[in-house]
Amino acid sequence: MANSTTLSCFYYSKLLAVRCSAYEKDGGGGGGVRVNGTAHRAPMQVGAALETSINRSLAGLMSAPVLPPPAVESRRSQRQNIPREKQTVDPFRQALIVEGGVRYRQTVVVRSYEVGPDRTATLETVLNLLQETALNHVWMSGLLGDGFGATHGMIRNNLIWVVSRMHVQVDQYPIWGEVLDIDTWVGSSGKNGMRRDWLVRGRSSGAIFVRATSTWVMMNKNTRRLSKMPEEVRDEISPWFIDRHAIEEESTDKIIKLDTNATYVDSDLKPKRSDLDMNHHVNNVKYVRWMLEALPDQFLQQHQLSSIILEYRKECGSSDVVQSICQPDEDTILPGDNVSMVMGPSLSPEIISGHHSLAGALQQWPTKYTHLLQLKANAKYEEIVRGVEAHVKIAAESTWIASE
Amino acid sequence: MANSTTLSCFYYSKLLAVRCSAYEKDGGGGGGVRVNGTAHRAPMQVGAALETSINRSLAGLMSAPVLPPPAVESRRSQRQNIPREKQTVDPFRQALIVEGGVRYRQTVVVRSYEVGPDRTATLETVLNLLQETALNHVWMSGLLGDGFGATHGMIRNNLIWVVSRMHVQVDQYPIWGEVLDIDTWVGSSGKNGMRRDWLVRGRSSGAIFVRATSTWVMMNKNTRRLSKMPEEVRDEISPWFIDRHAIEEESTDKIIKLDTNATYVDSDLKPKRSDLDMNHHVNNVKYVRWMLEALPDQFLQQHQLSSIILEYRKECGSSDVVQSICQPDEDTILPGDNVSMVMGPSLSPEIISGHHSLAGALQQWPTKYTHLLQLKANAKYEEIVRGVEAHVKIAAESTWIASE
Repeated sequence: MANSTTLSCFYYSKLLAVRCSAYEKDGGGGGGVRVNGTAHRAPMQVGAALETSINRSLAGLMSAPVLPPPAVESRRSQRQNIPREKQTVDPFRQALIVEGGVRYRQTVVVRSYEVGPDRTATLETVLNLLQETALNHVWMSGLLGDGFGATHGMIRNNLIWVVSRMHVQVDQYPIWGEVLDIDTWVGSSGKNGMRRDWLVRGRSSGAIFVRATSTWVMMNKNTRRLSKMPEEVRDEISPWFIDRHAIEEESTDKIIKLDTNATYVDSDLKPKRSDLDMNHHVNNVKYVRWMLEALPDQFLQQHQLSSIILEYRKECGSSDVVQSICQPDEDTILPGDNVSMVMGPSLSPEIISGHHSLAGALQQWPTKYTHLLQLKANAKYEEIVRGVEAHVKIAAESTWIASE
Repeated sequence: MANSTTLSCFYYSKLLAVRCSAYEKDGGGGGGVRVNGTAHRAPMQVGAALETSINRSLAGLMSAPVLPPPAVESRRSQRQNIPREKQTVDPFRQALIVEGGVRYRQTVVVRSYEVGPDRTATLETVLNLLQETALNHVWMSGLLGDGFGATHGMIRNNLIWVVSRMHVQVDQYPIWGEVLDIDTWVGSSGKNGMRRDWLVRGRSSGAIFVRATSTWVMMNKNTRRLSKMPEEVRDEISPWFIDRHAIEEESTDKIIKLDTNATYVDSDLKPKRSDLDMNHHVNNVKYVRWMLEALPDQFLQQHQLSSIILEYRKECGSSDVVQSICQPDEDTILPGDNVSMVMGPSLSPEIISGHHSLAGALQQWPTKYTHLLQLKANAKYEEIVRGVEAHVKIAAESTWIASE
């Protein structure tokens, strides 16, 4: 490795877990396809120094991989074209490193299959693009080894990254064909964590579409304990840190834990093969789908998500059975806002009152919802992820788009 | 329009439907969100000249859009950056027109969220990229008006395109990070149809990953009858035709119609909001998921799809209830092939017999499956799409990848 002062490098499995080492050689069933593995339920011991609300349940998120034959590894590396040194330009991904060689910027066009019926990018697309740019940032550092990466110091200390929190704020959804610049960078988070932020902007207008931030902590991949950040690791990654926050006024409130007395409860949700990511776990996008599918259709037709905060507790495998619980915050009903936002400049009250869908829009809905996804483990439930999200009424312009 | 001899232009809704006109002004509920509309079940009359097995059920695939306010339309066009004249280079999509100005080529990198647990691109990703490049081909023609496009002659004749058949052949699945060149072009198909073909290749090796072809016919958007291709339309689109087939030996066998006596029957499948595309219909990728989900997990873990043919009959809306029927072709069990393919050069018989997943791989499965998706309309079922697909055993190299 030409440059040992490189980016803190992690495997970014759908924003959640988790492996940063190169191939592990220990355990794991000797090469079988572990689609239905339940290793993530293994018991863990937690280091006292960093005991937080998340650490009890981060046990065993990693499945244990097997070293591939060298010839296979070599062919794959060639096809993936993974750089062994830091790059400042990635022509195929239309990316470059800016701002003193540490901030990553990629240009993407919103594709036809990344938009929903209203022809704006879906929240899933936004989450996917955040994941993609974070990984590509690491790719350009020259440290990414087939998707799993860690600094030299992390490997020496058997450490991996786990994400504990994610906050995505959507100011506006980009439309089909829109050209976006996505920036991402890392910074310090407390004494032992790292944050990763994103800013998604329209290339022509410079308008901000999405702001996002996430928090990462280190875990020993053998003991499954959360770990302090060793000095040698701090020395490696801190040169990449930028002290800038994509979301200025970041909420620090903890998300309350729901129970089955909540308003909406969807039980017996089962992951499908297509919901699994490279880590053989259910991906983050599916979590958000399960959360949103707990909400009434009529609400979702008239509102779009403007902000979501996720607190991760535990991975979910393909054999798990999931329950999605949701509680509206009744204090967030704002009837006045609803009416004025729907009217817009070009619609008269007569049109609104005579119009089926606009009349329906006058129904008053809460705009804030708290979520819990949990899985059934033996006789009890274990938390996967908590969430809280805010919605805004779809404006008149978007309604026109949706009705075409 | 600077160049009236332009590409036959169509709205390529997830490979299926359907609209090519600019905004229609007639009907459609005056701007409401038509998520749960059932317009696709409207009765149709079929033109005798082109009566085929598909035309009875292609009725009313189009929802009726509403003209947006000019200011909204203008802002959107600016953000989408839709060219009004033919372009030969699209820098943001990394595309260019080659081969005499008619064949489209786009370079893409397989993204982290486009691969499955085995870290190769999923079939869904392949289908998405075919759709995307077809639409971008039309985009570069300068004729794409906000996603709906037709030649001037088609608009004058109230004609739209509908797809009747699709054949995708996957020689090899690209892996995460692989750089692909995707070519697509159009050609004639019989007297009144058009074909669109694709070729997906690795940029560095030139190896072919995917070959695909599709057949399109014209429909009058008012009468919902299939239509002959008017001479003026032929004059417009034929300069874009290339007489080259991505799949040399194209099967012309019709796919048999299954009934509920078939081996696998999944009933009561319900589309979710996230399954809908810009046309407010269930997208093509979801069709294929429903088909594959009818197959046993154990089979899918050990095989990957190498070829799929789809014959489209009817669109599916968000309120439809779908049945997925599947019949294995027992004549396609090839036990000898299974064993030799799994062994590979580096695995001894001892390893195979001692290995759980490889031992399981010796189970004999048919490799060819026939499918039918149908929806319940009143008391009877109506066909959405028929399919037939072939699978190959996952080779040893892929097994290693999957087990990491």
